[in-house]
Amino acid sequence: MKKTLRRVALGLSLILVSGALAAQVIGKAEDQIRWRQSAYNTMAWSMGRIKANLEGSFSKEQVVQAANTIQAIANSGMGALYQPGTDKGSGHHETSVKSEFFKEQDKVKELAMAYNREANEMAKVAATGDAAAAKIQFGKLGESCKACHDKFRKEEKK
Amino acid sequence: MKKTLRRVALGLSLILVSGALAAQVIGKAEDQIRWRQSAYNTMAWSMGRIKANLEGSFSKEQVVQAANTIQAIANSGMGALYQPGTDKGSGHHETSVKSEFFKEQDKVKELAMAYNREANEMAKVAATGDAAAAKIQFGKLGESCKACHDKFRKEEKK
Ligand code: HEC
Ligand code: HEC
Repeated sequence: MKKTLRRVALGLSLILVSGALAAQVIGKAEDQIRWRQSAYNTMAWSMGRIKANLEGSFSKEQVVQAANTIQAIANSGMGALYQPGTDKGSGHHETSVKSEFFKEQDKVKELAMAYNREANEMAKVAATGDAAAAKIQFGKLGESCKACHDKFRKEEKK
Repeated sequence: MKKTLRRVALGLSLILVSGALAAQVIGKAEDQIRWRQSAYNTMAWSMGRIKANLEGSFSKEQVVQAANTIQAIANSGMGALYQPGTDKGSGHHETSVKSEFFKEQDKVKELAMAYNREANEMAKVAATGDAAAAKIQFGKLGESCKACHDKFRKEEKK
């Protein structure tokens, strides 16, 4: 928290997510990359928890916690963390984003909106406590993550 | 997402947060450390956004997005990411947790509950769109982060 959050004056040409961005964009390139990698990791943790609950004993409480976390991040407007100049650089590690991400904005938006829809639906389904429905929705949500990775994320090295 | 989420059979002696943990604990030590560092970074991003909105032009939408993200993480039961054996080790980098965290569970719980309360309140206040109230609540929330860091997190090196 001691790290200064320098506001960088950047154009807002890159409106990636529905729910248009408003005024404030924060962080240097390395901050933005670290934050988006962090947000994705937080979702991966949450997806892992849902999976473990579907495969093991099902705790509605845990699935709700995880689904709500994914939902909040999906609605956080993290498209703002893809400012021009963040196609290269290092956050926790070198960014895995493909340069196409910054060129094919319509496709990014389409995939981001699909994921947003599935994430909101996952939270709704989790709240019902219906494990069978949660399993189906978990599959759809996972597909929506994968669809974006297939197109816009470089292969993991390991 | 290719990284296997190995469930580790661990005792649940460490019930750190209100809303007791149920069955599933996932991840190896390095995963748990990476996930908690990620979740904290996601909150730091969100705090930075709220701050920028309080200091610059105020977008209710952005403050709500950020406050909801913090709220979801505060309610996610991330105490589960502090299993025994995660007092040392590396996630994105070497853990900064102090060993006291694993010994003073009553104090951890007290600080975690205070932060949980402030995070829930922050989301409530954000939803009203009242910038002056948001500023006050932001201060309280920040104090609740700091209270835990002062006691349980090692000094940042940089
Ligand atoms: C609209 C596109 C998009 C969607 C949707 C998406 N991702 Fe990603 N994801 C990316 C990109 C791009 C990166 C690379 C980010 C970087 O390294 O800067 C990434 C990186 C990641 C990483 C690696 C983070 C790291 O430390 O490098 C994980 C894990 C991940 N995503 C999980 C998920 C999960 C889980 C979901 C869905 C719940 C999801 N992603 C949805 C585009 C997306
Ligand atoms: C109950 C204790 C507790 C609370 C509450 C808490 N933190 Fe932390 N925080 C920690 C500990 C412990 C670590 C070290 C984690 C590690 O490295 O394994 C940490 C690490 C961090 C880090 C560094 C992450 C990294 O990459 O090493 C940031 C940033 C952070 N916290 C921000 C916050 C913010 C913002 C809040 C409140 C909105 C908050 N924390 C609330 C205990 C807490």
